[in-house]
Amino acid sequence: MSKGLPTRSENYSEWYNEIIKRANLAENSAVRGCMVIKPYGYAIWEKMQRALDDMFKATGHENAYFPLFVPKSFLEKEEEHAEGFAKECAVVTHYRLKKDPSGKGLVVDENAKLEEELVIRPTSEAVIWNTYKNWIQSWRDLPLLINQWANVVRWEMRTRLFLRTAEFLWQEGHTAHSTSEEAIAETNQMLDVYATFAEEWMAMPVIKGAKTPNERFAGAEDTLCIEALMQDGKALQAGTSHFLGQNFAKSFDVKFVNKENQLEYAWATSWGVSTRLIGALIMAHSDDKGLVLPPKLAPVQVVIVPIYKGVEDLAKISERVNPIFEELKAKGIAVKYDDNDNQRSGWKFAEYELRGVPVRLGIGLRDLENGTIEVARRDTLTKETRPLESITEYVENLLEEIQTNIYQKALQFRNDNTFRVDSWEDFKIQIEKGGFIAAHWDGSSETEEKIKQETKATIRCIPFESVEESGNCIFSGEPSNGRVIFARAY
Amino acid sequence: MSKGLPTRSENYSEWYNEIIKRANLAENSAVRGCMVIKPYGYAIWEKMQRALDDMFKATGHENAYFPLFVPKSFLEKEEEHAEGFAKECAVVTHYRLKKDPSGKGLVVDENAKLEEELVIRPTSEAVIWNTYKNWIQSWRDLPLLINQWANVVRWEMRTRLFLRTAEFLWQEGHTAHSTSEEAIAETNQMLDVYATFAEEWMAMPVIKGAKTPNERFAGAEDTLCIEALMQDGKALQAGTSHFLGQNFAKSFDVKFVNKENQLEYAWATSWGVSTRLIGALIMAHSDDKGLVLPPKLAPVQVVIVPIYKGVEDLAKISERVNPIFEELKAKGIAVKYDDNDNQRSGWKFAEYELRGVPVRLGIGLRDLENGTIEVARRDTLTKETRPLESITEYVENLLEEIQTNIYQKALQFRNDNTFRVDSWEDFKIQIEKGGFIAAHWDGSSETEEKIKQETKATIRCIPFESVEESGNCIFSGEPSNGRVIFARAY
Repeated sequence: MSKGLPTRSENYSEWYNEIIKRANLAENSAVRGCMVIKPYGYAIWEKMQRALDDMFKATGHENAYFPLFVPKSFLEKEEEHAEGFAKECAVVTHYRLKKDPSGKGLVVDENAKLEEELVIRPTSEAVIWNTYKNWIQSWRDLPLLINQWANVVRWEMRTRLFLRTAEFLWQEGHTAHSTSEEAIAETNQMLDVYATFAEEWMAMPVIKGAKTPNERFAGAEDTLCIEALMQDGKALQAGTSHFLGQNFAKSFDVKFVNKENQLEYAWATSWGVSTRLIGALIMAHSDDKGLVLPPKLAPVQVVIVPIYKGVEDLAKISERVNPIFEELKAKGIAVKYDDNDNQRSGWKFAEYELRGVPVRLGIGLRDLENGTIEVARRDTLTKETRPLESITEYVENLLEEIQTNIYQKALQFRNDNTFRVDSWEDFKIQIEKGGFIAAHWDGSSETEEKIKQETKATIRCIPFESVEESGNCIFSGEPSNGRVIFARAY
Repeated sequence: MSKGLPTRSENYSEWYNEIIKRANLAENSAVRGCMVIKPYGYAIWEKMQRALDDMFKATGHENAYFPLFVPKSFLEKEEEHAEGFAKECAVVTHYRLKKDPSGKGLVVDENAKLEEELVIRPTSEAVIWNTYKNWIQSWRDLPLLINQWANVVRWEMRTRLFLRTAEFLWQEGHTAHSTSEEAIAETNQMLDVYATFAEEWMAMPVIKGAKTPNERFAGAEDTLCIEALMQDGKALQAGTSHFLGQNFAKSFDVKFVNKENQLEYAWATSWGVSTRLIGALIMAHSDDKGLVLPPKLAPVQVVIVPIYKGVEDLAKISERVNPIFEELKAKGIAVKYDDNDNQRSGWKFAEYELRGVPVRLGIGLRDLENGTIEVARRDTLTKETRPLESITEYVENLLEEIQTNIYQKALQFRNDNTFRVDSWEDFKIQIEKGGFIAAHWDGSSETEEKIKQETKATIRCIPFESVEESGNCIFSGEPSNGRVIFARAY
């Protein structure tokens, strides 16, 4: 029931938490900062995984699996990388517990101290490049195009379900190439894959661009990203693709013999998206009634609810519904027939609204007589009565229409909330209201840092699609030849 | 190339290691006891996952995800469970590293010590039952049928690729029920799922049965298992399904209101299979030429190798091969056309033999003239020439035939290596030769333990299909009313 769900305008943060709770997506676990992803939330992740995995394979990547543990000495090897992750590492120091000699329970066995501490991977560049050393000898071994689906741990102090958790699930691509150009092309290609996924599957428009040096991944030469706008006007980084240059190859001594028979360091990329995308999906589309899911990622795309009084009525309705159910299933549509007798249809309607099921079909005895069925759309909250006869084709098309409509609505929202700002005064006013701000910046880290301190706004990206345009930095007044995107961000 | 691959009879253990290495399935990582699963090995795991996951869903289970970390106090709650896993736990004690003040590199930040140590999950009963406490209030919340795909860590001292590694990948089902009967039925059902998977997908015959109390999972009332026989005559436990009674419900205080409105502890099961199955798959079927994969789990089911001299010849062959390739693909067959010009066809033949590709099609210019193609089977190492015309149907049927043949061969091997033994002298002789030994046992743990000490043989299971038969324990001479299965095991 949506009763009591806080509205977005009342309390956006509570609205987000309550949707996750009531739609049974996830919950905080007893372990600090770690979440339990519940079946309905995990089903969304499975749909995301399947779609992304297909796209990775279509672009020539293979999956593999590398150890959870990173020896401390590996993490140290790439200096910036080490610095970037050291502060949030879960560290394994012992490999055994023993009975508490002074009582009940277990204590750490001090005789089982590891010679070298192991860090739970916060990301796998170190452990993977240490492995690649043995896999790469010649240009013939390149490119090496590998992806891993895994859990990672970053000990965050302030956590938020899906958006920022100590443990999260993700995929991390790690590729090695024989030339800088090829690695850069890979970095771009994977950003495009992410953008396509965000727009076509998540129905979430994104801006593609490059991070400023300040915001780069620790150890990267260049970090590309896709940035989305949430309904509260805050930005969310939805995926990153890094060109790592030869940094990791040098740190882990990964050389290959090139076609000219010379030894050279390999060129690297890495790229990842995580369960954070589920948070983005919720915040991009949902409304005050609950979750709104784009059909392509909805675990249940269509629910059929019978409206009846007694068992006999239900039998009649079921008889007519069954072939429709089968036809929808045969079209590859995830359909559920909810003939559960413990709940009334009104309760079910509210429940599926809350859970974001894109299409709800309601059918009662009068519908049987009239040869009709009621079709309710979750995205627009509209209802209409349709002939039963051609309902499966209608629903099939409707799902596509909903997918498009959700995207268009989010795009419209973003366009309405993207502002060109040219003065520091206007900037300070606009940033309080939220949205993407396209403004001139002088290109210096100092200015970027000061703007952040004064307004909490960060440069989300230097967009690929910006037009060359001369102007003056909103903060320093120094000359600039293009706008960057500012926002407060998750 | 299979050149130099040790034979099974020479050195079974080395043969196993070399197949893994040369077929690029996995390797030891720099982290003690942890493996890197390479793309070809991981592709087999993906096929296993897909098949199992479909079977879990078809039996009403949903996937979810629970934290990697188990607080020490949770592990302590179920006493037997705690005792069973305490000795092999990786323990996280700190959550931050810092720069070494006395030099380069990183050290553990002693100011970031956890109040309570976290254990990397060796299995998730504790963390999951602590969560279920909040999910289960009424009989209406039951059954709860959940599965998790995850990594787990058990700090084993002696490790072996796939068979026994410190970190491994697995699935773990955790279900809660309102009656003992229902939980027992679930335990049996999931054992059947595993047996079906082992036999129909892995082509590996298994014996279903129950473990003796000694060999039960720590915290279980009953442990069911499937046991397979490897080619060296050793047994391998391929999957287990546990009836946990109310042990975990009591430890974590998980009560529900039953239909009679009384508070009752929930009944539990758990069940799992792991990447160990890849080790079983290798050892069950492979031969001295390399890997033999059952078609249903082969990442590449059919490879087409052109036999040619120059580019023009290749073009002619490719022209004829392309439609065959497309037809096979359209049938859902994983087919690869290897027109790589860097390797000779002879090298490719040996390579695909080593990698266990079930069917190899070879085609040269003379074949084009004759309208024929050479078909080589990996399982029998036989070749025949077939008309090109109907080759796709032929290959489709052949894959099924190979699947069946591999199973039959393994079944024949097991039958030939299962022995009824009735005296202690014969037992000691037979156990040295290997195989399953069906023998009488007096039912006592003492006898079981002594037999193990003297011969390294364990009771693999009390088979479901054993016939009632009175006899005398091979060791103690005490009366027994049925045979159990003994073997040395992995």
